[in-house]
Amino acid sequence: MVVPQHDVIGVGNAIVDVLAHADDAFIADNGLNKGTMTLIDAEAAETLYTRMGPAIEMSGGSAANTIAGLASLGGRGAFIGKVREDQLGDIFRHDIRSLGIAYETVAAPDGPSTGRCLIFVTPDAHRTMQTFLGASAELGPEDIDEDAIAAAQVTYLEGYLWDRPRAKQAFVKAAKAAHAAGRIVALSLSDPFCVDRHRGDFFDLVEAHVDVLFANEDEIVSLYQVHSFDAAIQRVKGHCQVAALTRSEKGAVVLSKDEVHVLDAEPVDAVVDSTGAGDAYAAGFLFGFTHGRSLAMCGRLGAIAAGEVISHVGARPEVSLAELVKLKLE
Amino acid sequence: MVVPQHDVIGVGNAIVDVLAHADDAFIADNGLNKGTMTLIDAEAAETLYTRMGPAIEMSGGSAANTIAGLASLGGRGAFIGKVREDQLGDIFRHDIRSLGIAYETVAAPDGPSTGRCLIFVTPDAHRTMQTFLGASAELGPEDIDEDAIAAAQVTYLEGYLWDRPRAKQAFVKAAKAAHAAGRIVALSLSDPFCVDRHRGDFFDLVEAHVDVLFANEDEIVSLYQVHSFDAAIQRVKGHCQVAALTRSEKGAVVLSKDEVHVLDAEPVDAVVDSTGAGDAYAAGFLFGFTHGRSLAMCGRLGAIAAGEVISHVGARPEVSLAELVKLKLE
Repeated sequence: MVVPQHDVIGVGNAIVDVLAHADDAFIADNGLNKGTMTLIDAEAAETLYTRMGPAIEMSGGSAANTIAGLASLGGRGAFIGKVREDQLGDIFRHDIRSLGIAYETVAAPDGPSTGRCLIFVTPDAHRTMQTFLGASAELGPEDIDEDAIAAAQVTYLEGYLWDRPRAKQAFVKAAKAAHAAGRIVALSLSDPFCVDRHRGDFFDLVEAHVDVLFANEDEIVSLYQVHSFDAAIQRVKGHCQVAALTRSEKGAVVLSKDEVHVLDAEPVDAVVDSTGAGDAYAAGFLFGFTHGRSLAMCGRLGAIAAGEVISHVGARPEVSLAELVKLKLE
Repeated sequence: MVVPQHDVIGVGNAIVDVLAHADDAFIADNGLNKGTMTLIDAEAAETLYTRMGPAIEMSGGSAANTIAGLASLGGRGAFIGKVREDQLGDIFRHDIRSLGIAYETVAAPDGPSTGRCLIFVTPDAHRTMQTFLGASAELGPEDIDEDAIAAAQVTYLEGYLWDRPRAKQAFVKAAKAAHAAGRIVALSLSDPFCVDRHRGDFFDLVEAHVDVLFANEDEIVSLYQVHSFDAAIQRVKGHCQVAALTRSEKGAVVLSKDEVHVLDAEPVDAVVDSTGAGDAYAAGFLFGFTHGRSLAMCGRLGAIAAGEVISHVGARPEVSLAELVKLKLE
């Protein structure tokens, strides 16, 4: 087999985040579901944006954040996701390429504008996300470059793709291409509501296509419709090769058929904004995984990356994760 | 005279800042003039953006930042500046209106895109700015609403406007309208290179039109072509009614015909990014000035506002300046 050109190729929504601080009253007054991601249409996005306070814009997207984290760790990443030919699309493309990530998906020349995610960060550091997928939802199987998939050790898919029919086809094509090339498929369940929307599909997917599964406590409990995290662990064991199950400040459980590791979260001075915590965890984990580290060390790398991202506003690392890891592991 | 509807109306460039960290080698390799603002054309902006690291976007513009700071202090502000009808223009409009600032300048339906300022923040917290004015340079006298000018106690103009002929006409029209309505005209010299480009004009302007002058040490020394800050002080006294001259960590000197105040800078834990320090100083000062505070207190308010803005990345306040001032003055 050829030496893979990339460690991980991510397939996901190509989104620009629009972040503002908000108080709990704002969340309640606008009927938002605190701590979750909700899909909204262009009109609702426009209305909500009008009510939103002054904001900052930065590239986001779940799998794209993960690949950005991987690059910050020194990993070689690629990304597939759809923007439109517009200013936000230019911003997304610039930011991901400036990290040395291969990004060749053709921008849509017309149709909905580049997707954006309105993120409200409350004083408790939780984030509530309202996403207008825009051009991102136009991702289709024709955007999946099978050679690029074959050229990466791991194909990493975000569950959010399952929300749109053509993106779903792209998702399945990518997973099949990866396995056909003898590569590994990883999936992040993304969000408990996303799991609720697609439980049966995700269950079958994990069985048929997924080697490495990322989920948080709510998501994994929802996937198996069980009443406790412990019960979910019994179910996931054997359902896929590796599962990394995160529990915020309670740490994470990483398991394979033969191993179970119960790992602490990385201590942080202050949690400022939890946006991107799961994305960063997956970045650290997959960096370790594609560099032959033990499962326990993969989990540690995930925790270090997540700890950095939650210590500031924004979903991508602000410092070199490679240097941070060096400091932490010395 | 009618009670003014606004404390301050700003007239300036309507710009979206694009901020990234960079090291000194990047500044040198790209031939940038560290610590200053340079105007670049669309092509140069494109090339430099390609070389820039991952960035965040936030609304900027010198006078616009000042009005944002004024609003954060609880002041009533208005702004005149030109964007194009595009996504960056939408961002600029949203951010300024979301602060309760009156902003009615009609966006250009075609022509150059909304202006942007590529800002490179070096590890020493200095910022180097490369500005593509875009639609901002299309501001013309037709955009100056004389009723809006007459409805504000102070019309605040940024020196940067002087870089384009039509914006210059707008500037002069605004100054004349303010005086015709018995209002006060304030000017920020913006940047030593801007002063170099337009020294004679600025000198005449201060004499003919400016009541309150904002400048930093380099700018005021350049305006009068003298060799020391002290010599500049002797010249500015009597040249306009009030001058507020800032000297970074050395504090500021505020003077009128009858008073001279030598004021300390506000202590800050760590200077993270000096972008917007002068803009925030003017915000604090003008808030005090339009609320009948003493010149010394105007200076103190300016220092508090500047201290907040330099303690984080970005040129606009991250916290309520009104609450910060309350804390500091208690």
